[in-house]
Amino acid sequence: MSQSAPYALPFHHHGKSKVRVGRVWREGNVHHMVEWNVNTMIDSDMEHAFIKGENTGMTATDTQKNTVYVVAQRMSQRCTVEQFAIALAQHFVRTYPLVSKAKIYVEQKPWARVQQGGLPHDHGYALQGTEVRTVYVTYDKAGKLDVTAGIKELSVLKTTQSGYEGFLRDQYTLLPEVNDRIMASTVTSTWKYTSQPPCYDAAFNAARGALLEGFLGPAKGGIYSPSVQFTLYDMAKILLDRVPQAESVFLNMPNLHFLPCAPVGSTFKNDVYVATSEPHGNIEAVVTRRTAAPHVSKL
Amino acid sequence: MSQSAPYALPFHHHGKSKVRVGRVWREGNVHHMVEWNVNTMIDSDMEHAFIKGENTGMTATDTQKNTVYVVAQRMSQRCTVEQFAIALAQHFVRTYPLVSKAKIYVEQKPWARVQQGGLPHDHGYALQGTEVRTVYVTYDKAGKLDVTAGIKELSVLKTTQSGYEGFLRDQYTLLPEVNDRIMASTVTSTWKYTSQPPCYDAAFNAARGALLEGFLGPAKGGIYSPSVQFTLYDMAKILLDRVPQAESVFLNMPNLHFLPCAPVGSTFKNDVYVATSEPHGNIEAVVTRRTAAPHVSKL
Amino acid sequence: MSQSAPYALPFHHHGKSKVRVGRVWREGNVHHMVEWNVNTMIDSDMEHAFIKGENTGMTATDTQKNTVYVVAQRMSQRCTVEQFAIALAQHFVRTYPLVSKAKIYVEQKPWARVQQGGLPHDHGYALQGTEVRTVYVTYDKAGKLDVTAGIKELSVLKTTQSGYEGFLRDQYTLLPEVNDRIMASTVTSTWKYTSQPPCYDAAFNAARGALLEGFLGPAKGGIYSPSVQFTLYDMAKILLDRVPQAESVFLNMPNLHFLPCAPVGSTFKNDVYVATSEPHGNIEAVVTRRTAAPHVSKL
Amino acid sequence: MSQSAPYALPFHHHGKSKVRVGRVWREGNVHHMVEWNVNTMIDSDMEHAFIKGENTGMTATDTQKNTVYVVAQRMSQRCTVEQFAIALAQHFVRTYPLVSKAKIYVEQKPWARVQQGGLPHDHGYALQGTEVRTVYVTYDKAGKLDVTAGIKELSVLKTTQSGYEGFLRDQYTLLPEVNDRIMASTVTSTWKYTSQPPCYDAAFNAARGALLEGFLGPAKGGIYSPSVQFTLYDMAKILLDRVPQAESVFLNMPNLHFLPCAPVGSTFKNDVYVATSEPHGNIEAVVTRRTAAPHVSKL
Repeated sequence: MSQSAPYALPFHHHGKSKVRVGRVWREGNVHHMVEWNVNTMIDSDMEHAFIKGENTGMTATDTQKNTVYVVAQRMSQRCTVEQFAIALAQHFVRTYPLVSKAKIYVEQKPWARVQQGGLPHDHGYALQGTEVRTVYVTYDKAGKLDVTAGIKELSVLKTTQSGYEGFLRDQYTLLPEVNDRIMASTVTSTWKYTSQPPCYDAAFNAARGALLEGFLGPAKGGIYSPSVQFTLYDMAKILLDRVPQAESVFLNMPNLHFLPCAPVGSTFKNDVYVATSEPHGNIEAVVTRRTAAPHVSKL
Repeated sequence: MSQSAPYALPFHHHGKSKVRVGRVWREGNVHHMVEWNVNTMIDSDMEHAFIKGENTGMTATDTQKNTVYVVAQRMSQRCTVEQFAIALAQHFVRTYPLVSKAKIYVEQKPWARVQQGGLPHDHGYALQGTEVRTVYVTYDKAGKLDVTAGIKELSVLKTTQSGYEGFLRDQYTLLPEVNDRIMASTVTSTWKYTSQPPCYDAAFNAARGALLEGFLGPAKGGIYSPSVQFTLYDMAKILLDRVPQAESVFLNMPNLHFLPCAPVGSTFKNDVYVATSEPHGNIEAVVTRRTAAPHVSKL
Repeated sequence: MSQSAPYALPFHHHGKSKVRVGRVWREGNVHHMVEWNVNTMIDSDMEHAFIKGENTGMTATDTQKNTVYVVAQRMSQRCTVEQFAIALAQHFVRTYPLVSKAKIYVEQKPWARVQQGGLPHDHGYALQGTEVRTVYVTYDKAGKLDVTAGIKELSVLKTTQSGYEGFLRDQYTLLPEVNDRIMASTVTSTWKYTSQPPCYDAAFNAARGALLEGFLGPAKGGIYSPSVQFTLYDMAKILLDRVPQAESVFLNMPNLHFLPCAPVGSTFKNDVYVATSEPHGNIEAVVTRRTAAPHVSKL
Repeated sequence: MSQSAPYALPFHHHGKSKVRVGRVWREGNVHHMVEWNVNTMIDSDMEHAFIKGENTGMTATDTQKNTVYVVAQRMSQRCTVEQFAIALAQHFVRTYPLVSKAKIYVEQKPWARVQQGGLPHDHGYALQGTEVRTVYVTYDKAGKLDVTAGIKELSVLKTTQSGYEGFLRDQYTLLPEVNDRIMASTVTSTWKYTSQPPCYDAAFNAARGALLEGFLGPAKGGIYSPSVQFTLYDMAKILLDRVPQAESVFLNMPNLHFLPCAPVGSTFKNDVYVATSEPHGNIEAVVTRRTAAPHVSKL
């Protein structure tokens, strides 16, 4: 590109999205199954493809897709989605000189082993939840590895122990103050690991449990939420407490309103609600350990 | 409408769709919550609205919506979705002389009480599954009541104990015969009650359990499926066995293919699969007790 | 199946869904392209598969899928989606002795040739609308052919010339009477042909134009709608007038409410509306020529 | 928050999503209508809500929603979506001392005036495309205003004049080199304005036209694409040429594969394709004027 070219290409990358993998490990009669939706992206020295139309040296997105299946098969022992994503990211950087960084994002569907008559089924699964487990791994030529785990669309609701009071009132304010309402959200969270946890599955389960506990509180009585903001911060803190290798937590919590309903000719009695999906409140934050940098730099 | 009018209006109806209701019953500290998506439809003597533009006597869809919330509040004791739909259908027919039939379809979201530390939470729920519980109730002026319960998008998968052999082979056939494959489906089923079960919730749970058992077989070893067809028929039979008040069962079972994958340079080893959503096989049938009429007359 | 079997199998069928086909006809430099989403279903004498687990004689859904592409290639001259669906349905019935009826449903995406600088592009297309063209063809062993064309999700809106007055008012009624409102819908319609039109494309375009004209009226001034019901009936009548081979028209018209909005501290001035998607009114009817049977027998 | 607190809250914001507005301007008999889906987000000094559960000074998301409708009504003259978003962003920052920045994202649906009999309809609209117009406006206390316009899901396809050759081949590569294939994408693009264009609508239309022209080339013959990358870069360059106020262009272009199909017993003849949606290639880049900073800093 000549110095006088009027345009610049500050960023570019390419990859394959929605590469869907089923992976089964047969351990005798007991089978272990995961379903992954893999998205690959690579940073590479391919400006000439954009500018001159020359594809020399390009790792085709089709090749990236093929590799997903190769690496899935190489994971011959049962592994976590994080381990798979790391192996895949490292493969691209180590195999292709022009690739400076690989970015792998994977979603794992909530398939869970079915209990039949109190026993775990040998090979039978059902979707037991709507939440998707996520991982975003980056690996670069300098050997820097970042692992960010997450959960998407964890749907939770509590019928009480939620209120919202004391907020700013002005000419545009109509919302009444309440100290007893339904609170519902489909939580999305990601947390970056500063070091490798002993087991990624255990760390994920601890994180998921922390989010539920922060939202719902104890089984008996729950815990009062004065705002989605306060509850979000609490959820993040519990997550950091439970997962020592996590250093930064992002949370997005839509406030999925269940509006109090006064049926015609009657009044609201904490009984009937209008469930809505639009509009909805939207609260987002990053909470970190005091010494850590946030992994989401811009909201 | 004059005899000479060149057009006829053999059918018409109107109603309100996606009326979303949250219903909470507080029993001391323990709260019970359901979320319903209600669709109402009424048959009524309203030809004059279509033909002459006269709305006299019309039960507006907005009024139908209002009524959904009124009837939801009237259900002062914890009730099943079937009981709610019956009450709503009867209300429309009994209140409006021009209404000859009310048709109520309701979907109930899979909110389930969260277990925290081994205890059921007082008021905390999460979506614990993707399957939606459905009910379709019709009630007419003659007092005929039909209740059809159902389940939508029950996602199940087994990693083995499924094959497909012996089918017709001709010049258009490429599919190899296999005796070990993944079988996955998102099952939709409806079953019509010939009489009222002692408890609609218990009947639903028995039906859901029957579908899972027919698909997966026992926890140890499972059960072999020679085709989706055979498994579908088995699921329906078990449902009829377990739910004596059900007389006719409809099942739709997409065959969500997990294609055996031979990664580049390797072979398939019952380990890696390409998960797909399109195209998919589609198997549907109605199974009835010998003496019963099918509730779906046309597929 | 023995006489004493306690179950019956009154209906069953199987097929392949979401078989997606791109079909291009190159006529010199000018290319013609369609994208079809094909769903096949066959009625066949396959009770033994359900009851005994024997697949003998079964036309596999994979074979059905393969055939879709074979028949797509056989259409060597540019053809309509109706002609393709007929050829496919006839293929299944004529090829397989156990198949008693084939049912083909196809959706065609709204790809339309792009105009560049006032000229039609040789080979460039864009999605220019949200509406999907549909066809449902059935063909049976006796040679009976039924062709039902349709349109799905034709989104239309008018900002005035719509009202709703004179409906029933009772204790459950809150809706005010209005004579000036937004009317919006995503229209779904199917119409059955009693005989083959000279050109299926021309017939489809005439039908689509009739629906638009019935909804919107003339460019200058439009036409007043006293209810969705009246407008629906009008749309169907115009369609029957414009498409002589159509004998029965089904219309589903959700009433997608734009609620009048009085911003805080102000009033509604026919200017600001709250756009909603749930709940929505739902109006459905079948309109036929006086002498014809309705093609949808049950709503 | 004490110095010793182990957690930090580096980022947080809150707003209302999916605030849906219909806005009509009546100019005599001719009405102008837009439908906007508005998302508001504000940065504000509200750490105490997260940390102490105190809501003092908080602009509630409900208040933000109310304001959307107030500002929509204030736009008494027909305006562009950019002008509306700017007014809304400025309102929040100027009204609330604790708000340091407002971020407004709006999507405008592709409603377009219907042509009836060659004439523009007075008040009738249809969705004439799938593409959504977007705008992202930020305004902060220092008076800095950023306007980024965009388009989402512009679906385009060409049946020829596309190939892909000369890429890296290794043991993981299966893709054949081709010089004649279908190329299809649903383009998403955003472009940041360095200064205000004379008319935002004209600038948007010029940008949209540039994207179509870069993808399709001239009506007669089109233009050859050696890769999605090259075409993407070309589209961005044309956009920068046509819209002088745009300084930086982001493009995301999934490569929606239409796979060549050889029907059973035949070969591919540039006629039949398997249309797919997963997996798909994914190409992204930012192209800027030589002197400009990219508006997307991280892909």
